Amino acid sequence: MSEPLSTDSYKGVRDFYPADWARMLAMFSRIRVTLLAWGYEEYNASPLERAELYEAKTSEEIVNEQTYTFTDRGDRRVTIRPEMTPTLARMVAGKRRELAFPLRWFSIGNRFRYERPQKGRLREFYQADIDLVGLPKGEADIEIILLASAILKAFGAKENDFVIRVNSRALLNSACAEAGLKSDDIKQYLRLLDKKSKMTPEAFDVASSTITVKDPLTLIDAKPLEMFIAELKKRGVGNAVFDSGITRGFDYYTGIVFEVYDTNLANPRALFGGGRYDELVALFGGEPIPAVGFALGDVTLADFLETHGLAPAAGASIPQLYVGTPSESDIPSAQSFADTLRKEGGRVFVNLTARALGDQIKDAVKRGIPYFVAYGANEVVNKSVRMKTLATGEEVVLPVSDLPMRLRSVI
Amino acid sequence: MSEPLSTDSYKGVRDFYPADWARMLAMFSRIRVTLLAWGYEEYNASPLERAELYEAKTSEEIVNEQTYTFTDRGDRRVTIRPEMTPTLARMVAGKRRELAFPLRWFSIGNRFRYERPQKGRLREFYQADIDLVGLPKGEADIEIILLASAILKAFGAKENDFVIRVNSRALLNSACAEAGLKSDDIKQYLRLLDKKSKMTPEAFDVASSTITVKDPLTLIDAKPLEMFIAELKKRGVGNAVFDSGITRGFDYYTGIVFEVYDTNLANPRALFGGGRYDELVALFGGEPIPAVGFALGDVTLADFLETHGLAPAAGASIPQLYVGTPSESDIPSAQSFADTLRKEGGRVFVNLTARALGDQIKDAVKRGIPYFVAYGANEVVNKSVRMKTLATGEEVVLPVSDLPMRLRSVI
Repeated sequence: MSEPLSTDSYKGVRDFYPADWARMLAMFSRIRVTLLAWGYEEYNASPLERAELYEAKTSEEIVNEQTYTFTDRGDRRVTIRPEMTPTLARMVAGKRRELAFPLRWFSIGNRFRYERPQKGRLREFYQADIDLVGLPKGEADIEIILLASAILKAFGAKENDFVIRVNSRALLNSACAEAGLKSDDIKQYLRLLDKKSKMTPEAFDVASSTITVKDPLTLIDAKPLEMFIAELKKRGVGNAVFDSGITRGFDYYTGIVFEVYDTNLANPRALFGGGRYDELVALFGGEPIPAVGFALGDVTLADFLETHGLAPAAGASIPQLYVGTPSESDIPSAQSFADTLRKEGGRVFVNLTARALGDQIKDAVKRGIPYFVAYGANEVVNKSVRMKTLATGEEVVLPVSDLPMRLRSVI
Repeated sequence: MSEPLSTDSYKGVRDFYPADWARMLAMFSRIRVTLLAWGYEEYNASPLERAELYEAKTSEEIVNEQTYTFTDRGDRRVTIRPEMTPTLARMVAGKRRELAFPLRWFSIGNRFRYERPQKGRLREFYQADIDLVGLPKGEADIEIILLASAILKAFGAKENDFVIRVNSRALLNSACAEAGLKSDDIKQYLRLLDKKSKMTPEAFDVASSTITVKDPLTLIDAKPLEMFIAELKKRGVGNAVFDSGITRGFDYYTGIVFEVYDTNLANPRALFGGGRYDELVALFGGEPIPAVGFALGDVTLADFLETHGLAPAAGASIPQLYVGTPSESDIPSAQSFADTLRKEGGRVFVNLTARALGDQIKDAVKRGIPYFVAYGANEVVNKSVRMKTLATGEEVVLPVSDLPMRLRSVI
């Protein structure tokens, strides 16, 4: 006989057993409800993309070191998407004549990066991408920040639980130019700035001194950002601040950039972020279409929610009622009884084993199913059941016709 | 300036614009509700799997010719999952000591096959995989067929819209042995049988004559299957039939196999199918864990539903109300008004453009949003709005406080 196969998943990705996946679904569901309330519509696409899509405008580090790129059997270069924005830009450009702008679009799905697995960094993670496409800076930038805040507040977060750090690529570029940097040096400087938090101050100073003698950050004209932040405050977002060190990793940003940070120092990483990218859609030809958006990853969001005790309870993911069978010959009538409840919206589990009723009750408890009834010949004749609440052991005899209503009161 | 990028997706996969994705979600949602009603729990896993997982027991054709397999930067061989069953078996084996058997599990997600794109065959498709793990043949086989039928009936299908063709790998194997075939010849014969419907009768006869002189199908003992079909009929599934030609492509089946066919001859392909695979989990070591299940693909299911006029309407995917702004300076109060409605569960789109109100109404119509209100300085003062039903042109003046209730009556 050959060696048994390993039960390990591929390195750096996760298996989601039902309880794990129920937590993910509860988190996505809360985000989805908020986005639909704001008039955003969901789209999707395949994670397989032509590799050239990322070579154009994603950051060099991601394309060269962090993508899954391979050649298919038809000699096409394929990348498994590391992020959603290039796909969004491609889809918008592909139907630019038919779509009703502005678009309020979102997509929730998995993204892939070839990274060394570490806390909060996996090779496959889930992300909600949220974009407002077709409007220049102004109200669109404001809506995106309001919405980023509304999503966290929908989970019960308070403004002192997080801070929104805002900067502007346009203002950073002007400041770099004023410091005497040329176009390529600006790119290099901004990438260095993006990594600053992971470096010692000395290492940053040494590295930046090879690019520039003046510190461009001291030359930023913060006025427009301060006005933007004041406007956000008037509109109900009081925890935005100017931070000249925020750049975001991607090359395609052109206007505001922002990152949301947990204020709890135990969780010091950026929770999520985004910005304005007015030139990306034009890479596919035609006039530029301005756009602004952000993306929330599942791992950092779940860390934030757990740190603050805000993780949503799993929804209607497990059965409400366990129908036990006194003997195997009772299974057909138990299934038929269960079916009448299912048709009324109940979630019903029927025992199909030869276990004793006492063991079936233990099984129901192990599964976290809240109610138990045995259904055999007596119940068929009497049209009534004895329903046991497993948390308390309480029992009540009910006509079968009362069960659908009872189950509707259980989550 | 460089060439514009192509807006095409990667070959053989689909872009889901919001209306397309809303249709997919409506279909998945109907399946999910039915499965939850039957006590099934949802799990998930990454599409990236170790390649060896498929080399063990999937069909040779799929592994050699139809998978996306590549080597990662750490020299690991990775396959993008072509089907879910090996992943399920791996996950079950990985926690066999902790899990409460039997498991009723399902997963809805994308699968990938490197095939020549053609009608109903794409390189990425979605599938709902449904499995009952831990029980031998008997009631578990019956539940799986009842459930396959219940899912189609939940879409409104009648029994004369489809037929469930049932066979047994165990009985096929016995018949082949009786016809004098050795183990390898049996495998080869079953694979040939799986392709029979795509061959001319003559080509099949020629190919099978190299394997066997007797026709094994005439030697099948159909009695056990006829009893199984009679039991299904008693239990409410009257459209199952014995079909000695059903084998299913995968090598891992050991007991019943079945395929569901549309009875409409315009749609002659198998809609979906499944079977029993009692040996698969044991590939990971330990005692065998019996299992039975099936998988429904999105493309064939959507074809079936459209053919029969059963495609479900898209759910709550677009905004209910368009809030127009008489001038750009009204946007802040319009957003604040919209926010009160969102907090009450409304889905509200706010205009952020400088368009005239008439053009905003046209925009709302184009987006399929059912109601329109303009919200400016007068509305702020009067605390009332004039709500226009766009389908009829009807207008009604309402106090702002009545709007949440009005929106709750819209899907």
